[in-house]
Amino acid sequence: MRAVVMRSGRLLLDEIPSPVPGPGEVLVRTLSCGICGSDLHALRHFDRLAEASRRGNPIASTVDPHRDVVMGHEFCAEVLDYGPGALKTAPVGTRVCALPVVFRPSGLHTVGYSNELPGGYGEQMVLSEMLLMPVPDHLPTEEATLTEPMAVGIHAVARAGLVGGESAIVLGCGPVGLAVIAALKLRGVGPIIAADFSPLRRALAERMGADKVVDPSTSSPYSSWWEAAAPAGYNPAGIEALLGIGDQPPPCVIFECVGVPGMIEQVLEGAPRRSTVVVVGVCMERDSFEPIVPLNKEIDVRFVFGYMPEEFAATLGHIAAGRLDVKPLVTGKVGLEGIARAFEELAHPDTQVKVIVRYGDRG
Amino acid sequence: MRAVVMRSGRLLLDEIPSPVPGPGEVLVRTLSCGICGSDLHALRHFDRLAEASRRGNPIASTVDPHRDVVMGHEFCAEVLDYGPGALKTAPVGTRVCALPVVFRPSGLHTVGYSNELPGGYGEQMVLSEMLLMPVPDHLPTEEATLTEPMAVGIHAVARAGLVGGESAIVLGCGPVGLAVIAALKLRGVGPIIAADFSPLRRALAERMGADKVVDPSTSSPYSSWWEAAAPAGYNPAGIEALLGIGDQPPPCVIFECVGVPGMIEQVLEGAPRRSTVVVVGVCMERDSFEPIVPLNKEIDVRFVFGYMPEEFAATLGHIAAGRLDVKPLVTGKVGLEGIARAFEELAHPDTQVKVIVRYGDRG
Repeated sequence: MRAVVMRSGRLLLDEIPSPVPGPGEVLVRTLSCGICGSDLHALRHFDRLAEASRRGNPIASTVDPHRDVVMGHEFCAEVLDYGPGALKTAPVGTRVCALPVVFRPSGLHTVGYSNELPGGYGEQMVLSEMLLMPVPDHLPTEEATLTEPMAVGIHAVARAGLVGGESAIVLGCGPVGLAVIAALKLRGVGPIIAADFSPLRRALAERMGADKVVDPSTSSPYSSWWEAAAPAGYNPAGIEALLGIGDQPPPCVIFECVGVPGMIEQVLEGAPRRSTVVVVGVCMERDSFEPIVPLNKEIDVRFVFGYMPEEFAATLGHIAAGRLDVKPLVTGKVGLEGIARAFEELAHPDTQVKVIVRYGDRG
Repeated sequence: MRAVVMRSGRLLLDEIPSPVPGPGEVLVRTLSCGICGSDLHALRHFDRLAEASRRGNPIASTVDPHRDVVMGHEFCAEVLDYGPGALKTAPVGTRVCALPVVFRPSGLHTVGYSNELPGGYGEQMVLSEMLLMPVPDHLPTEEATLTEPMAVGIHAVARAGLVGGESAIVLGCGPVGLAVIAALKLRGVGPIIAADFSPLRRALAERMGADKVVDPSTSSPYSSWWEAAAPAGYNPAGIEALLGIGDQPPPCVIFECVGVPGMIEQVLEGAPRRSTVVVVGVCMERDSFEPIVPLNKEIDVRFVFGYMPEEFAATLGHIAAGRLDVKPLVTGKVGLEGIARAFEELAHPDTQVKVIVRYGDRG
């Protein structure tokens, strides 16, 4: 089959053997696949990503950064065939989404970050039958493809421990930040203040539901939050603020969706007292901060990663029902031969947000 | 009045003017005062502590490290007189505890870390009338003195977000760690694994309610937790552990009560997946960690500080009712002239845990 292979830090369109489904596995034809920011990171630092994915994750399978990897873990596909012992619950030809995870005797594989299991930058994939989710007939393939990144937002908001009445700050409006904004809107959280340096991404943040967007190079998202969320005349440096008495602003939940060193410290400095900080951005380098800052403000920091199967399924349901509108996120479409170029464009946050790789035209 | 003054990084017994109660304030005679680990830290790095107390705390009053400070914020005292406009709810002679906080036009002062308001290392103090809590007659003065440090433990456990069924690891068995253990026991949390290098502190941890104590120089508190809390035959590296299916260990809550650089990273590395880490130890230096570790394990980190007035009052009630037994914590008693020596002894964790400064013999 044809696939874009990551080899020696480069993306090469090549002919490789099709994967073979094992017990409980399904062979699918890729219909479309999103390009994820993690893939851009992996192309430059795959050794670091391979090491990182194993930290605190004892059953993750080993990935050898020096062997070929076919990336792509945000996909919509069509059932072609089943491996031995499969239940065959979805007939051949069914369009499906799936968690990009396969359990094999060699360990837990992430489809798209494995030497064994090619991801959606190849024409065929092998998936776990038990993790397949059929795509409703009326839902276009491209929208179903966004299930995976949107599920990241649904999960992050679920893990924020909302009790009602919160308002939010979202830092970084790439696909993850935009998914968080949409998930917050779905939960009725507001106002939502969103910050990004890119005008394109700020415009998308508004379309996804942000109440106010901020360019952090000219104004502070925290000041904007105080203005938008605090009662009139509220003094954040007053005794009422410290004791939490009188008319108070709603609890503040801050989503860090950037994932570069220094962001966590910046958030801890800016966060209002008693905020919850949800760290969604994946920073793979060592980072530092001064513990006295979150201690004095009694901040909760919740680190989140991925999603649960039920959240993935719920996300697909929200998209199919029109509760999550993902169409604005897709800023580009390419074929296999366009992936390498799309990676270059995605490095510039004001050109592209989500690029979809398309195979054929099955809607 | 006589007081032990911190002056140029030294503790000196001196004669200083008695404080004068302002509006809404009360003058008290100190009956006893605990020596806190923060005081030891302040003696060596008061400039750093003064700066740190203001971080994220906009209404904290400025403390000038170059002017005299009378420390001591864990006290039991006796009402002597009231300032103008006081309600005089507690008659003169009443024994009281109080939050060591006074609001003045110059800002929020912590009694014991202020240039204006001497703490319990002096014979008299000025406190906020609204924060006074009368000590029940039957309760010995020394036990009431422990209200403040025990309230830190009560607050830390309250902030852990327990939903029931948790088991705990407590790292560091100084007064804060011991208070956390007692508060956990009060909440029915168990098993409680406690770790400290000092045999004296490990013995006290057992008396306060730890189910198992560990010397971290010879064994891992995390391994001990797995042994004590996980179901028989449970494999922390198994697929069941990752997915959280089948017979699972109880949620793990880890209390970091050491407060030195590197501890937070160590906890994040050792913590089981989906743990809650409550940071109680006050680390005043910059610290570093690798965000990918807590991200992969989806860890919640809750930074806590101090206590709320209602928690302070509840703690006094628990001590008075015998639900919290604080007597084992007191390992030494001194007069004013013994404070400097006690500071030296407290630097060695196997000699002293909590030293109480006594004035006279009112029980």
